[in-house]
Amino acid sequence: MSVKYVYKFSEGNANMRNLLGGKGANLAEMTVLELPVPSGFTVTTEACTKYYDDDKNINDEIKKQIFDNLKDLEKKTKKDFGSVKNPLLVSVRSGARASMPGMMDTILNLGLNDEVVKAFAKLTNNPRFAYDSYRRFIQMFSDVVVELDKSKFEEIIDDMKKSRKINLDTEFTAEDLQEMIKKFKAFFKKEKGYDFPQDPKEQLILSIEAVFRSWDNPRANVYRKMNEIPYSWGTAVNVQEMVFGNMGDDSGTGVAFTRSPSTGENKLFGEFLINAQGEDVVAGIRTPMHIDKLAEVMPDVYKEFTQIADRLEKHYHDMQDMEFTIERGKLFMLQTRNGKRTANAALRVAVEMVRENMITQKQALLSIDPKQLDSLLHPRFDDAKIAKIKPLGSGLPASPGAATGHVVFNADDAVKWKEEGKRVILVRLETSPEDIEGMNAAEGILTVRGGMTSHAAVVARGMGVCCVAGAGDIVMDEKGKNFKLGGITIKEGDWISLDGSTGNIYEGELPTQKANLSGDLAKVMRWADNYRDLEVRANAETPTDSRQALEFGAEGIGLCRTEHMFFGADRIRSMREMIIANDEAEREEALEKLLPLQRGDFEEIFQIMEGKSVTIRLLDPPLHEFLPHDKAGIEGLAKDLKKDYEDVNARINSLKEINPMMGFRGCRLSVKYPEITRMQIRAIIEAALNLQEKKITVYPEIMIPLIGSKKELDYVKSIVIETANKVIMERKTKLNYYVGSMIEIPKACIIADDLAENAEFFSFGTNDLTQLGFGFSRDDAATFLESYYDKKIFESDPFEKLDQEGIGPLVKMAVDKARATKKDIKLGICGEHGGDPSSIEFFHLSGLDYVSCSPFRVPVARLAAAQSSLRNPRNKFVETLIESGNI
Amino acid sequence: MSVKYVYKFSEGNANMRNLLGGKGANLAEMTVLELPVPSGFTVTTEACTKYYDDDKNINDEIKKQIFDNLKDLEKKTKKDFGSVKNPLLVSVRSGARASMPGMMDTILNLGLNDEVVKAFAKLTNNPRFAYDSYRRFIQMFSDVVVELDKSKFEEIIDDMKKSRKINLDTEFTAEDLQEMIKKFKAFFKKEKGYDFPQDPKEQLILSIEAVFRSWDNPRANVYRKMNEIPYSWGTAVNVQEMVFGNMGDDSGTGVAFTRSPSTGENKLFGEFLINAQGEDVVAGIRTPMHIDKLAEVMPDVYKEFTQIADRLEKHYHDMQDMEFTIERGKLFMLQTRNGKRTANAALRVAVEMVRENMITQKQALLSIDPKQLDSLLHPRFDDAKIAKIKPLGSGLPASPGAATGHVVFNADDAVKWKEEGKRVILVRLETSPEDIEGMNAAEGILTVRGGMTSHAAVVARGMGVCCVAGAGDIVMDEKGKNFKLGGITIKEGDWISLDGSTGNIYEGELPTQKANLSGDLAKVMRWADNYRDLEVRANAETPTDSRQALEFGAEGIGLCRTEHMFFGADRIRSMREMIIANDEAEREEALEKLLPLQRGDFEEIFQIMEGKSVTIRLLDPPLHEFLPHDKAGIEGLAKDLKKDYEDVNARINSLKEINPMMGFRGCRLSVKYPEITRMQIRAIIEAALNLQEKKITVYPEIMIPLIGSKKELDYVKSIVIETANKVIMERKTKLNYYVGSMIEIPKACIIADDLAENAEFFSFGTNDLTQLGFGFSRDDAATFLESYYDKKIFESDPFEKLDQEGIGPLVKMAVDKARATKKDIKLGICGEHGGDPSSIEFFHLSGLDYVSCSPFRVPVARLAAAQSSLRNPRNKFVETLIESGNI
Repeated sequence: MSVKYVYKFSEGNANMRNLLGGKGANLAEMTVLELPVPSGFTVTTEACTKYYDDDKNINDEIKKQIFDNLKDLEKKTKKDFGSVKNPLLVSVRSGARASMPGMMDTILNLGLNDEVVKAFAKLTNNPRFAYDSYRRFIQMFSDVVVELDKSKFEEIIDDMKKSRKINLDTEFTAEDLQEMIKKFKAFFKKEKGYDFPQDPKEQLILSIEAVFRSWDNPRANVYRKMNEIPYSWGTAVNVQEMVFGNMGDDSGTGVAFTRSPSTGENKLFGEFLINAQGEDVVAGIRTPMHIDKLAEVMPDVYKEFTQIADRLEKHYHDMQDMEFTIERGKLFMLQTRNGKRTANAALRVAVEMVRENMITQKQALLSIDPKQLDSLLHPRFDDAKIAKIKPLGSGLPASPGAATGHVVFNADDAVKWKEEGKRVILVRLETSPEDIEGMNAAEGILTVRGGMTSHAAVVARGMGVCCVAGAGDIVMDEKGKNFKLGGITIKEGDWISLDGSTGNIYEGELPTQKANLSGDLAKVMRWADNYRDLEVRANAETPTDSRQALEFGAEGIGLCRTEHMFFGADRIRSMREMIIANDEAEREEALEKLLPLQRGDFEEIFQIMEGKSVTIRLLDPPLHEFLPHDKAGIEGLAKDLKKDYEDVNARINSLKEINPMMGFRGCRLSVKYPEITRMQIRAIIEAALNLQEKKITVYPEIMIPLIGSKKELDYVKSIVIETANKVIMERKTKLNYYVGSMIEIPKACIIADDLAENAEFFSFGTNDLTQLGFGFSRDDAATFLESYYDKKIFESDPFEKLDQEGIGPLVKMAVDKARATKKDIKLGICGEHGGDPSSIEFFHLSGLDYVSCSPFRVPVARLAAAQSSLRNPRNKFVETLIESGNI
Repeated sequence: MSVKYVYKFSEGNANMRNLLGGKGANLAEMTVLELPVPSGFTVTTEACTKYYDDDKNINDEIKKQIFDNLKDLEKKTKKDFGSVKNPLLVSVRSGARASMPGMMDTILNLGLNDEVVKAFAKLTNNPRFAYDSYRRFIQMFSDVVVELDKSKFEEIIDDMKKSRKINLDTEFTAEDLQEMIKKFKAFFKKEKGYDFPQDPKEQLILSIEAVFRSWDNPRANVYRKMNEIPYSWGTAVNVQEMVFGNMGDDSGTGVAFTRSPSTGENKLFGEFLINAQGEDVVAGIRTPMHIDKLAEVMPDVYKEFTQIADRLEKHYHDMQDMEFTIERGKLFMLQTRNGKRTANAALRVAVEMVRENMITQKQALLSIDPKQLDSLLHPRFDDAKIAKIKPLGSGLPASPGAATGHVVFNADDAVKWKEEGKRVILVRLETSPEDIEGMNAAEGILTVRGGMTSHAAVVARGMGVCCVAGAGDIVMDEKGKNFKLGGITIKEGDWISLDGSTGNIYEGELPTQKANLSGDLAKVMRWADNYRDLEVRANAETPTDSRQALEFGAEGIGLCRTEHMFFGADRIRSMREMIIANDEAEREEALEKLLPLQRGDFEEIFQIMEGKSVTIRLLDPPLHEFLPHDKAGIEGLAKDLKKDYEDVNARINSLKEINPMMGFRGCRLSVKYPEITRMQIRAIIEAALNLQEKKITVYPEIMIPLIGSKKELDYVKSIVIETANKVIMERKTKLNYYVGSMIEIPKACIIADDLAENAEFFSFGTNDLTQLGFGFSRDDAATFLESYYDKKIFESDPFEKLDQEGIGPLVKMAVDKARATKKDIKLGICGEHGGDPSSIEFFHLSGLDYVSCSPFRVPVARLAAAQSSLRNPRNKFVETLIESGNI
């Protein structure tokens, strides 16, 4: 049996979205519901895929099915395609599985030609309308199908307006339009070398091909990448009888939402235009009227429409976004779909629909895009105010939120100014690990270079600090401590404001609002917690971050990076002294100074996280990241340590690495310098014991990074256990603590069964696992990744969304191997993917126990985890109990 | 049932090597053969493992078994341990699964104490001998068991010599020795705080523990790492009734090989000393006599010994290395084992034993260590030239081969100079096990003392390092770091040359000559080729290397690295021009200049490799590797390209990478700059067509490096195919060429099934796979790997020997997935592991089709591949046919 490539609207339904696209499936559903939908048929997404497989060619089988369905449509409408008596005109519209508004092409009024238009003029008794439709068709077809320059047609129109001394298109007479058509056709022939196609069937096939082709246009590709829509899906094409909203004052067209897409208020929200086609609404040339006005203008139509809207919302159990046309007083529905909405609207709609018993809590949770919540969780500018201000320029929206502060040009100044009580924005060409303290001190970070995965972007997202990266228009003068943007020079100390959600950069101090968990968001979070299996923790190492994490509902700290604690002004000196040390004794001496500081850090965090797990990762980065690399810095250090400049310089040089990502770091530091680990363990255990003495419950989890072999884990763990037990014995007391390993090296996944023998928990470091699994470093990939996106080799950033083709299987393999050895081993993930919804679903399906992410992502993760549990219930029985309110 | 930890010699046999160690198993075998072996028993390797598991403690069960067996030994020998009437004395010797000569400890004459020695003196009627035995025992025990400083005992002896005005130990009287014993014991008590142990049972347990402990001594660890002997094996301990070669002129001791270990000649080869203990032979203090002399001195013993030697060789089907002692005219066998031999000897023994019908070809192939062949495959001195040069002097030709290098006088310097990239000759009075690392670092070893079986000679032969031993004419000034020979003073750093095949020592740096495949080696290679399943190719990209590869029997080129072709003076300029180019047009212009040069390179190689596969890897390294990085170089380049210095410098800086190993390289270059790939493909295909026109058969295999995803492979392959087919069409001809992918990124292993859909072959790049799989770069790992070896986390270098714990499984997974998609896909490996025998066996077992290695390793790989096929026959039937000569 041959494949069915074309479906009549009456043959489909809303569940056939993958095959018919969203628009086609919903047109079919409305047809089945017997709503007033103009007849038509859908050419499937499979036909599109076939078209690309066949070297951009619609094969004869598909053509046959199209024409067969066209014949049926003629029967149904009692009109004939290309007839000069009662001609059938159709629209040809794209419709992919996922909504991609405005990204692909549409052709209206198809079926007109020089002869048909005459008949149409007679039939409608409206020659002006008929010729206007034809000239519009020629314009659209020329633009979309044969890609002639649109502006040339506008020029012809403008010339004719001038010669006729008129201002508006509507002032053209039927005769004017006939002349215009002649000019359009002449231009077409001149440019293309052949006549404008007169055969409506040829017009149809060419138009369907054009829509298929538009799947691959640049703006569609960009949109897909942004929204993670696979290229392989393809688009469907809907061919539908034309109805005309532009047949006079008893006609019109409009769009409406069943609730407000901006606030979620339960009230019909929309706009319409009298005597217009849909494109006129979208184009925004005439100002449309509020949908409420329709009740006055056409009360019957309004009543019918509100009833349909109500029915559709109840039918789809979701807020609907509808398009309609009124032709001579008769209402036609052209589209319905679940409406896009702001995060606030999404929450309000969900909560209210549950209250209205329209949907269940489960459905409500599934209706909210977790990624959207992000925008609610960072400080924001006042939307109304910001709309009126022109930005100086913009960069990439690298880390969301809003920030305002004094401009500083280096990390030291950021720290200093912050200590003086000032809010600062750190502006750099690009950031490096040495800037980390300054980045932490800043309200926002602005860089000239680097992409969404540059150091600045990654670190800022991790810290939840607003960041605009890669603002290439900035002319930077780091030495002079100023920069130029948008014709203005900003000097050190001047106020600027950054919007990390849009990438906009503003002059001056703009007021911001702090985010919090309340109202609808708080309610939705409580629901989510009822359904999710995954525990959600946060990555945090400062008191501020830890408190933020708790506020956002984190159930523990899944990653406390101890290295960030060594950059403070009071400790970097001892850290450097330790690194520069000539032998173990010198190293021990410097470590002795760091011990009380580290212990203090841990005490603070344990106190804040009372009763919750705190996973502390041992020192991880290469030691050279802590050292100065410029001559002045090295001289300063040598003087400070009372050492010879040459010696210090030599030591710093000896620590330089060719590939620092793959160098002397992680547990390799513990193997070579176990004394560093001993100090860290002593600090952790002493801090825990100090709090325990104050009756504060602590759950320290000690995590060893970069483990790659069993013996390596055994060795480092033996140091951890020895030291910890020694400290506990010294105090003559007891303490529960746990020791586990990061799984972030490909080999660690392969030998996870062996490693599990000697670990109480694993935490996947999917950042490094992705780097090593793909064989490219995040710092260096920017050079070539753009080409990979352009050429569709990659469709999403593997550092944002876990690659499920190659890295996912490594994670899954490690989970299975670990559980085979130790069924109840605690498994989590603390890479950036821990805050990405699609990755969270993968982790849930892989059988992890928890995800850990930036504090600001915790609510996103809670919702995403709940959604995954709802989509993939681990235990149907428990789910039923929850749903029934019995547990 | 409790574990049996102790076996009498009569309870074991040669197959129990894993449990009894090599020495114990062979003592048992000789006992079973009823050869004259002193009675004894073996404490197993499992007891050693248990000892380490029990925190270095011999548990009661094991002690009980030891003492039970001791009782049996007393019965058998009719002597009593610790008795003052007829005392039993024993030796305590180590014996691991693999031979580790001189690496572990031995205690002789155990069972003596203040009382027993008196009885022993009476019984032997030789007080001098008895007290000499006791003082030797105290010395050995103090050194080995309680680790007192050996030299202190030597000082006591020297002082006594002075006071008695004697020169030789043998001049001491029994009374002198009794006094010496008193002094030894006093020193012992002073140092240790307790008396020298008088209880023979305590002596025994302490000594067994000491031998167990010696398994973990530093020199044993170094030896194991060099010889890839796992730490976990442990050593057995042999306790054996003492026999004495030092009871007078009718006594003696010696070592002998059934054939020459140096040339393989079928003639008893060995040395012995009259009136001596074994340690005297090995220490090389007295110069021993040739074994032939024994026929004159003790004709009956000689006859018995030759018969035993003959019987043992036939029994073991291999050349034997034996130790014997003659006590008052009676021969005792103390050890037999398969003899270590030079590569030439191994080949000759193998070939001759086949001729003698003593072994089959299969056994012959399995008897040769493939790694040893290495020594035959590197340059040698030009025989003709060397004949005209007068040597400074000569020593014993202890380990063959030629070496030239700077003179150093201690092992540490050898290691240090080697690290600085210098070739060194290590010159020592005599070597000791502590020198082992330095010996490994040296090109050659020269000693003043010691014979063909001295430490230096044995170890050097094992390593395949050239050695001239016992060059007694040398006047050595170790402190002054110089020596005199032939009237000339050679200082540290001076060049000398050694011929290990003649024993000659030359002044200066002598030119060396290429090795070739002839004689026994050629014959063995032909045998190997009959048995192996794996194809062996070479990594080569120059005509010289390609010819060398062919000479050594490579069946094709498995890796031709095109980047090496761009460094030539005639092309680096165009390469740089291409890299610095501002746009595609400029790049194309520079590529145009490179095209004819690349084409020429390929023509040459195709011509040399006529009829054989040539696998050409597309450009792989990061582009910055081709650029100058110093100011002068950049200025030169800018001038040369008529560009602005600042622009060129900026471009060079923009190409710098943080982790170049994980950066913009491999197929990523093809994705971003497909024009580079187009040029390379055109060069390959045009070269192939040019030769095809001359009727030369070519098999170009085009290999895409660093592939990590299916779409990436598809994209790059489409460029390859398009360009290749275009070139072929231009010539209106046909060409068979193949396109495949490197598998060197962990993710590529995971998705090998998908990749196989679009590849005709895979070649594993196990260097990069190891780097990424372990998460450390070869360039940076040196910083910490030493700690990993010290702490026994790693026991071998994963870049030399494929890690079968984590990387092996990735390879195996990829092989299985690839074959699941495409059963007959060609699979090979071109990393450095392709020349490592144990890795080759793994690749064979994993189901690869070929290995590719350095040209000099091709014979090693051919033999290793044959051995793997023999050990792991893929098809028993085929194997039988080969063996029977039927195919």
